[in-house]
Amino acid sequence: MNTKISVDKNKAKDKDKDKDKDKVILLICDGLGDRPSLGGKTPLQAADTPFIDKISEDGINGLMDVISPGIVPGSDTAHLAILGYDPYKYYPGRGVFEAFGADMELHKGDVAFRANFATVDDKMRVIDRRAGRKGSKELAEALNGLEIEDIKIFLKNTTEHRCAVVMKGKNLSKYVSDVDTHEEGGIVKDCKPLTLKEGADERKTAGIVNEFVRMSYGILNEHPVNEERRRRGEPPANIVLLRGAGSYEEVPSMKERYGFGAACIAGASLYKGVAKYLGMDVVPVEGATGKADTNLNNKAEAALHALDEHDFVFVHVKGTDNSGHEGDFEGKRKMISRIDKELVARIEDVDSYIIITADHSTPVSIKRHSSDPVPVVIKGDGVRKDGVNKFDEISVASGGLGRIRGIDLVPILSDFMGYYKMYGT
Amino acid sequence: MNTKISVDKNKAKDKDKDKDKDKVILLICDGLGDRPSLGGKTPLQAADTPFIDKISEDGINGLMDVISPGIVPGSDTAHLAILGYDPYKYYPGRGVFEAFGADMELHKGDVAFRANFATVDDKMRVIDRRAGRKGSKELAEALNGLEIEDIKIFLKNTTEHRCAVVMKGKNLSKYVSDVDTHEEGGIVKDCKPLTLKEGADERKTAGIVNEFVRMSYGILNEHPVNEERRRRGEPPANIVLLRGAGSYEEVPSMKERYGFGAACIAGASLYKGVAKYLGMDVVPVEGATGKADTNLNNKAEAALHALDEHDFVFVHVKGTDNSGHEGDFEGKRKMISRIDKELVARIEDVDSYIIITADHSTPVSIKRHSSDPVPVVIKGDGVRKDGVNKFDEISVASGGLGRIRGIDLVPILSDFMGYYKMYGT
Repeated sequence: MNTKISVDKNKAKDKDKDKDKDKVILLICDGLGDRPSLGGKTPLQAADTPFIDKISEDGINGLMDVISPGIVPGSDTAHLAILGYDPYKYYPGRGVFEAFGADMELHKGDVAFRANFATVDDKMRVIDRRAGRKGSKELAEALNGLEIEDIKIFLKNTTEHRCAVVMKGKNLSKYVSDVDTHEEGGIVKDCKPLTLKEGADERKTAGIVNEFVRMSYGILNEHPVNEERRRRGEPPANIVLLRGAGSYEEVPSMKERYGFGAACIAGASLYKGVAKYLGMDVVPVEGATGKADTNLNNKAEAALHALDEHDFVFVHVKGTDNSGHEGDFEGKRKMISRIDKELVARIEDVDSYIIITADHSTPVSIKRHSSDPVPVVIKGDGVRKDGVNKFDEISVASGGLGRIRGIDLVPILSDFMGYYKMYGT
Repeated sequence: MNTKISVDKNKAKDKDKDKDKDKVILLICDGLGDRPSLGGKTPLQAADTPFIDKISEDGINGLMDVISPGIVPGSDTAHLAILGYDPYKYYPGRGVFEAFGADMELHKGDVAFRANFATVDDKMRVIDRRAGRKGSKELAEALNGLEIEDIKIFLKNTTEHRCAVVMKGKNLSKYVSDVDTHEEGGIVKDCKPLTLKEGADERKTAGIVNEFVRMSYGILNEHPVNEERRRRGEPPANIVLLRGAGSYEEVPSMKERYGFGAACIAGASLYKGVAKYLGMDVVPVEGATGKADTNLNNKAEAALHALDEHDFVFVHVKGTDNSGHEGDFEGKRKMISRIDKELVARIEDVDSYIIITADHSTPVSIKRHSSDPVPVVIKGDGVRKDGVNKFDEISVASGGLGRIRGIDLVPILSDFMGYYKMYGT
């Protein structure tokens, strides 16, 4: 491939020991896959996508079972698979990604959680699971650094009412249940060892979690932020609810595993967390929000720039999934059209492989993730261009890739890029 | 989905805790897949199938490797896979299905066999492997309940010369060879431990089997039924030949494994046996013979009725396979046309998912099972309707399902039905 993106990139290539290697932009549109609904079309079929369709026309297309047929992927396990890590082996539990996404440090044996500030009454009944969208930073600081027995607990506010929690110390386990009720009106749950593994570590961890939640109520209920809220007639954000325990173990980085340096361009913290877990560089992007209002132009710019110093650039867009969960066909259609014009249009002539796909389907008709396979296209030097010229869930099925799995994608790309390993001689 | 089948179904749905879940009719036409032969067409291509083709047009189509590419499936392992049970893990040996199909009781550790009444001369040479199509019931009764050492042996006549045999007692093993010669003219074989496992249990079981076969000759040769046969100039059904040892272990039922209650509509006992093994309700159908003369109208009625109380209705038709084994193109073509008119036409507008597929190919050109993948179509709410409008082995290859495996089918259907589990968050 020629180098025509920027002067910087030429310089980078000159420095590069692997001059003959190619680069990749992998665009994952979260929850992009769908089922036919409005007018018998999927949002992707209904969207205005000339640039994406051109990539489809120039590329090789197919369907991808992100985990395996019939298995409904979560966003976390899905991204592990698509980035080349078998989730059945490498999935550490959601909390780990949350903590990495919040830029917290993790070491082997640390246990991490997702957490919400919530409002409870004095009988521990949950009135609001998402309380304190303002002032959360101070509340988090009030709880950060607490010690219970030999365990030290760190807490960091991420966005709005959301936090990441990290517990450090000996003999902790991720096999404990959620404290979060997952719906309003319920009583805060006791954290318990999960039935699949009930040992001393699990009992200890559950005890620490329960004590931490009790302490959070004591500290937060009287906190000046909440006294101020009460004065304004607002319910206090007076407890922190934990869920999604994860246990950190080191994994080989993408560089170690596949040989190429990788960067992540994402707004939502989960995806940044997955990327850090896999040793990718997370590139900060102004206006990348992980929502429909995200700045796609900036993401495109950041992706092109990241190619200077990286071989593999993973770009994540979340808005498509949000509309799917809301059952908003028109919102999803519009988001896809925006991705086409504001992101793909700006990267489509890059001198690297371009891959467009999704981490799972989130059909607007069912408002949840589904196992319907996602469309995938690979454009770049030497791919077996097929007859597909429209990128959608039905058209790609007759493409040259056939039906692959998420875990296959990075090995396929590695070979195109030149980072292949031959098996046998 | 709306409920429009019957008042009963509405009632059932009202009672149902899972009101939002959908139902399935899975039609398996045994050995349906074929290769092009007469006029370059397969029997399925040559058949008159307007109703099946309409389902193809409204549905998503593809090819299915029932086990995996190149593996020729038996009917028993094929059905396990298609019903969502990996045969490499859950296949108990054919005898178990035979015993379940004969409505015999099985408990953990019991060993079961298929068996034939046969004619042998006094040197144990097999003259007729299929003897005594009449009077078999009395002959079976003469052998039922025998005891050898600490083992009790039960025998039940199923159809014509066929029986199921169950051995109950301690330290029995399925790893023993067949006594059946599988062809006429040979000497009845000694049952021996299979080379892959030769322990005390295998030696004991082989000894019991050999003693039982010897005893069967002693009892049957002098039996009044056979004296009567000799008087009529017919050869006596004077021995019982065992084969296909299987060992029963409990498996999680479809309800336990997937969450839905399942029913089976079949004529041939093997398929009823598989269904019972998996905890399905076997619905009796008048005129369902497991042969070309089966009453397909009654099967259609039974399937619709079974939907009242079940979520997943498996309908089996055997006739297509029989014609394949006989190399009878025209017979197979006619059977397929009959399935279209007498069965599919009656269920095609049901308010449930409809799946049509096969357990394997039985090409008329080679008169045996083959590994050629089978066509599969799924019709129902939200499927990604593709461009295929003819259901045959070649047309479906460009469909939206691509090429899946048998073991994938039930997970895919579970997600459509609403019985999904998400992996990750």
